[in-house]
Amino acid sequence: MRPSQRRPDELRPLRFTRSFTRHAEGSVLIECGDTRVLCTASVENQVPPFLRGQGKGWITAEYGMLPRATNQRTAREAAKGKQSGRTLEIQRLIGRSLRAAVDLRALGERTITLDCDVLQADGGTRTASITGAWLALRDAIDQLLARGELAFDPIQTQIAAVSVGIVQGIPVLDLDYTEDSTAETDMNLVMDGNGRFIEVQGTAEGVAFSREELDALLALGTAGIAQLQTAQRAALAAE
Amino acid sequence: MRPSQRRPDELRPLRFTRSFTRHAEGSVLIECGDTRVLCTASVENQVPPFLRGQGKGWITAEYGMLPRATNQRTAREAAKGKQSGRTLEIQRLIGRSLRAAVDLRALGERTITLDCDVLQADGGTRTASITGAWLALRDAIDQLLARGELAFDPIQTQIAAVSVGIVQGIPVLDLDYTEDSTAETDMNLVMDGNGRFIEVQGTAEGVAFSREELDALLALGTAGIAQLQTAQRAALAAE
Amino acid sequence: MRPSQRRPDELRPLRFTRSFTRHAEGSVLIECGDTRVLCTASVENQVPPFLRGQGKGWITAEYGMLPRATNQRTAREAAKGKQSGRTLEIQRLIGRSLRAAVDLRALGERTITLDCDVLQADGGTRTASITGAWLALRDAIDQLLARGELAFDPIQTQIAAVSVGIVQGIPVLDLDYTEDSTAETDMNLVMDGNGRFIEVQGTAEGVAFSREELDALLALGTAGIAQLQTAQRAALAAE
Amino acid sequence: MRPSQRRPDELRPLRFTRSFTRHAEGSVLIECGDTRVLCTASVENQVPPFLRGQGKGWITAEYGMLPRATNQRTAREAAKGKQSGRTLEIQRLIGRSLRAAVDLRALGERTITLDCDVLQADGGTRTASITGAWLALRDAIDQLLARGELAFDPIQTQIAAVSVGIVQGIPVLDLDYTEDSTAETDMNLVMDGNGRFIEVQGTAEGVAFSREELDALLALGTAGIAQLQTAQRAALAAE
Amino acid sequence: MRPSQRRPDELRPLRFTRSFTRHAEGSVLIECGDTRVLCTASVENQVPPFLRGQGKGWITAEYGMLPRATNQRTAREAAKGKQSGRTLEIQRLIGRSLRAAVDLRALGERTITLDCDVLQADGGTRTASITGAWLALRDAIDQLLARGELAFDPIQTQIAAVSVGIVQGIPVLDLDYTEDSTAETDMNLVMDGNGRFIEVQGTAEGVAFSREELDALLALGTAGIAQLQTAQRAALAAE
Amino acid sequence: MRPSQRRPDELRPLRFTRSFTRHAEGSVLIECGDTRVLCTASVENQVPPFLRGQGKGWITAEYGMLPRATNQRTAREAAKGKQSGRTLEIQRLIGRSLRAAVDLRALGERTITLDCDVLQADGGTRTASITGAWLALRDAIDQLLARGELAFDPIQTQIAAVSVGIVQGIPVLDLDYTEDSTAETDMNLVMDGNGRFIEVQGTAEGVAFSREELDALLALGTAGIAQLQTAQRAALAAE
Repeated sequence: MRPSQRRPDELRPLRFTRSFTRHAEGSVLIECGDTRVLCTASVENQVPPFLRGQGKGWITAEYGMLPRATNQRTAREAAKGKQSGRTLEIQRLIGRSLRAAVDLRALGERTITLDCDVLQADGGTRTASITGAWLALRDAIDQLLARGELAFDPIQTQIAAVSVGIVQGIPVLDLDYTEDSTAETDMNLVMDGNGRFIEVQGTAEGVAFSREELDALLALGTAGIAQLQTAQRAALAAE
Repeated sequence: MRPSQRRPDELRPLRFTRSFTRHAEGSVLIECGDTRVLCTASVENQVPPFLRGQGKGWITAEYGMLPRATNQRTAREAAKGKQSGRTLEIQRLIGRSLRAAVDLRALGERTITLDCDVLQADGGTRTASITGAWLALRDAIDQLLARGELAFDPIQTQIAAVSVGIVQGIPVLDLDYTEDSTAETDMNLVMDGNGRFIEVQGTAEGVAFSREELDALLALGTAGIAQLQTAQRAALAAE
Repeated sequence: MRPSQRRPDELRPLRFTRSFTRHAEGSVLIECGDTRVLCTASVENQVPPFLRGQGKGWITAEYGMLPRATNQRTAREAAKGKQSGRTLEIQRLIGRSLRAAVDLRALGERTITLDCDVLQADGGTRTASITGAWLALRDAIDQLLARGELAFDPIQTQIAAVSVGIVQGIPVLDLDYTEDSTAETDMNLVMDGNGRFIEVQGTAEGVAFSREELDALLALGTAGIAQLQTAQRAALAAE
Repeated sequence: MRPSQRRPDELRPLRFTRSFTRHAEGSVLIECGDTRVLCTASVENQVPPFLRGQGKGWITAEYGMLPRATNQRTAREAAKGKQSGRTLEIQRLIGRSLRAAVDLRALGERTITLDCDVLQADGGTRTASITGAWLALRDAIDQLLARGELAFDPIQTQIAAVSVGIVQGIPVLDLDYTEDSTAETDMNLVMDGNGRFIEVQGTAEGVAFSREELDALLALGTAGIAQLQTAQRAALAAE
Repeated sequence: MRPSQRRPDELRPLRFTRSFTRHAEGSVLIECGDTRVLCTASVENQVPPFLRGQGKGWITAEYGMLPRATNQRTAREAAKGKQSGRTLEIQRLIGRSLRAAVDLRALGERTITLDCDVLQADGGTRTASITGAWLALRDAIDQLLARGELAFDPIQTQIAAVSVGIVQGIPVLDLDYTEDSTAETDMNLVMDGNGRFIEVQGTAEGVAFSREELDALLALGTAGIAQLQTAQRAALAAE
Repeated sequence: MRPSQRRPDELRPLRFTRSFTRHAEGSVLIECGDTRVLCTASVENQVPPFLRGQGKGWITAEYGMLPRATNQRTAREAAKGKQSGRTLEIQRLIGRSLRAAVDLRALGERTITLDCDVLQADGGTRTASITGAWLALRDAIDQLLARGELAFDPIQTQIAAVSVGIVQGIPVLDLDYTEDSTAETDMNLVMDGNGRFIEVQGTAEGVAFSREELDALLALGTAGIAQLQTAQRAALAAE
């Protein structure tokens, strides 16, 4: 039995709050159990220098954690004067994953920045960020379409992400912090709306994993992501 | 008539949500109209080097703004690699104000860090931070008292803060962003539970102010802070 | 009796040396007792990016302290790689105060930078910086007028600043370091040539202050600034 | 046919030069086609603060690229004053991978730092770094064993890594820069001496990949790593 | 004839003001023509980590230039967040030169920091810094001897420095800014009290120099330094 | 007898490997005994902002040392976030020395960056960098001439550098690390193809040096540089 009393293939309770804050074009609070991430999408009518004049847009992401989102207070990165390697790695992952959803040419010369700020952390913040950010992006694009600033929808597919891992020899879905910190293997999966992979990132934490274990984790994650995508669509329909 | 339809001496709707997040010893979401600040108090059983071995505690504050708390996205300070002068000035002000509430010797060799993170900004974020942080501090200290880690209460007084200003020639209380950005004079007041001043910071924004105007602003602010302190006490009683 | 044998309402001996260095358009050494600040005004024929093409000028300030201006050597900010919160706060105050003296439109697309470098510190360096910088600015503008680069004088008013505080229960004017480090309340006032306020910054250092004490400090400071402005005019006349 | 005339499952010519430089305890130049990385292992008799007094050792890695290792000169990270997100991500990967080879308790309170510096880049620098660093680590540990500083061998398994990807629809092994920059999917695999996985990092670059494609890539990579491990053993035997 | 009407072998008017500021153990304003550098010596009763417990002291130097010491305002290094290569090079030179004067073992576990801050620049600031810093060091050491904190004098020799150069084909002594900026060769010499060399730093600025020219410069510099050392001794005697 | 069994006036075994890496326009590995530096020349068709539109080119240099080029591992400058004063000083020296070889007007609006990266250090890395960088520059310019991008050769002279020093009272040529770390005087000389000086940088390390010693060092260095230039020409001829 898992510490949270969940079955191995059971997601944590999931909740999306759209329009959580009012300034951003898209603003979604995603809650996966006790993990809460505020994902905002900000639209800007220009692109970074390396893309200027090519008629293409850009999607990028930034990730942060409030100092007391964690059990022990973590030092504020702004005060330390730099973002950690972990932060940079996560925001690169979020950016890549969301770019996979979008036809950048159809977006036109615009940048959409997805800010994923963790208000409370209990494992799985990077995958929650991706799943929430897709919804914020969807809302921001819908606003551009509604205002007539875009004629065609540049979003090509739905994106969601989940973590899977092996804990005490058992493959489990959607690890919370307690499980994450003792997992033998930890894997993050990002998939599109057709069940194809965008990212597969598996790491052995102390014990190498076999091909069979990898297969089990992929199956577990694929099923979990299907549920997350269903929930995303429900949240959009619930307007 | 003010843009928000308020009377000159009227505060914005005020709401405190205690235990907004679960890890921190104190965690208060303060909402002053559309301004929303998450204030957490984190207790650590050591003090900075300059205080070691003196039997005294320390209260410090950090301030941050989520990139899309504002109407236009602001660059993330962690990504820029440094905190702005404005941020440093605000967090110094919050720290000084809260230290005025506490007998540091009675706190013992502990540091309490007040993190004030603006989720949504609409003027008055620094005064809302102080008012909310006092409540978070109160909750954190109450937890130390309840656990028997402190025998006596080190909090000596109640602290709240408000902004006042002169907008189109009229002294007004608790400015929102629209007023703040056109004010001729802008003043932040911090007061204790006896109606004495902790901080008075008045700045002419384009038009110098007379002694009479200063007096009017002080009166307006004093009355506003009395209301804020009543609300703080109500929030504590509502447990 | 004060440590310096002054009456509570007595300024320290004051001296202005104009043209202290030769390259700057304005260069004033201000000495307030043992506090000595070199204030230079540098004129540049362009404005920062956010003002370009608006036909307006800009006044800005930077503040620094030589490492051994103080009793104990302070680490050099250039070597540490960043300016402290205190430095940033002071230079923002100096810049705001001096901008209050100038019609930026009449200045045209020029930037005047006021560098205030403390050669020796004995309390009140930020207010001495403002009082000295106004004179350096006056000299720089007079040079532009004399050369015909400006047709009309953009300076609209005279600016001076002083500190006041409560030391051992007594309100006193123009604190030196010994008084400043033991003051219960510390206040900096900046006023224009009509006796109106530009900045009022009062801080309780351990003991909150009452409205009566605030009034006493404002009266003391107002009288002190009148004397400082008389001395500024005398220094200009003494050419 | 691949640009390099290789079959899809063919590695690039591989060469290890041990003792490439003389100061390091282990120093290996690995050449995978035109990619050349100098991997050095440096032994230090202390551990980072977070491990002190636990009787355990530490393995860490740093990664760098000479400015003109690449076709266009890349700016020197030391001159820019920070390491890029890509660099941090790679060195975290190398460190994790090599730690998987070692019983840190058997290593004792020592740190071994693996510096992987790319002298010439033609794709696959991170996987070449891992494969070369294992050999450098092996040499460094052998020196400690030979000198009697270690009684038992803390290396538990052999580690090697390779990249695989889908280029123009075809799964291929060990991509060079030309292939890497046009790949639809890019995957890095790290495996131990028992054919178990340490890291699986697959990224869709523009086209999501199916489960079947993932399986093909895993098979290709597994076979490639077996060859790399054979070559590592041959290099060790050739002493 | 030189721009300043000096003979080729003529120093600029030289003036030392001892005790220029009051906090430092040694505080000397050196004026070489229009170049003015404030040199302070600060004594601290500890040494840097790399020297602890060896019974030896340390002499170090820092160099800075006020932003408007120069004809065009130079950006403040503290605001830019780093010291330039030129600044680092100069302060390393000053530190090395002064260490050559002192028996570090006789100094005991103390650090003396020489801060050389240029108030006004007109060429030769680094050599003026060395010449002035020696006097500040002498004063600081004399204070330690007078207070009985040192029993024996750790200063072993007198140090002074001067610049020489080839301007329009003529070797000249003690270049001012006009000459320095057009010199074909620029050389800084540091010598001890026995006429031996501590530093010889000659640089061709556009035209390489012959052995004969080098000899002429060395002779000119040697004679100039003798005069500077005579002036240093006179300044000490004038107490 | 020297530790390396060399005569006082004997260079270390010298080897140039041209085209050591393949991307750079010039790429030379210079080996002076155990010191090995990779010098690459990178051509870019633009100049830094301060030179734009003047029809002139620019030559600049950067210097780095691999962490384990040294006997003890040195911290990576990219990881520390800044280049040391020593590094900045060396790269300024290399840049100045190479600019002395080139008619920048004849180079046209191009920048050539010389990256000198020390793979293995055993003393004399800065002089080896200069000697090797000249050859890399020569190769890069020859490529521009061969491609017809330059009509005339902008290189005006040959540049080489060597270190000399006084070790145990004896003037010696081309010090290795053992000698360098115990030398009483250390001098670096840079000369052109006519035997004229570009740089003379002599530093007393603990013992001041006399005019006679300086003369001996200059003679030794001049002879050594003649041999280095002969070897440079031989390497070019050996194509």
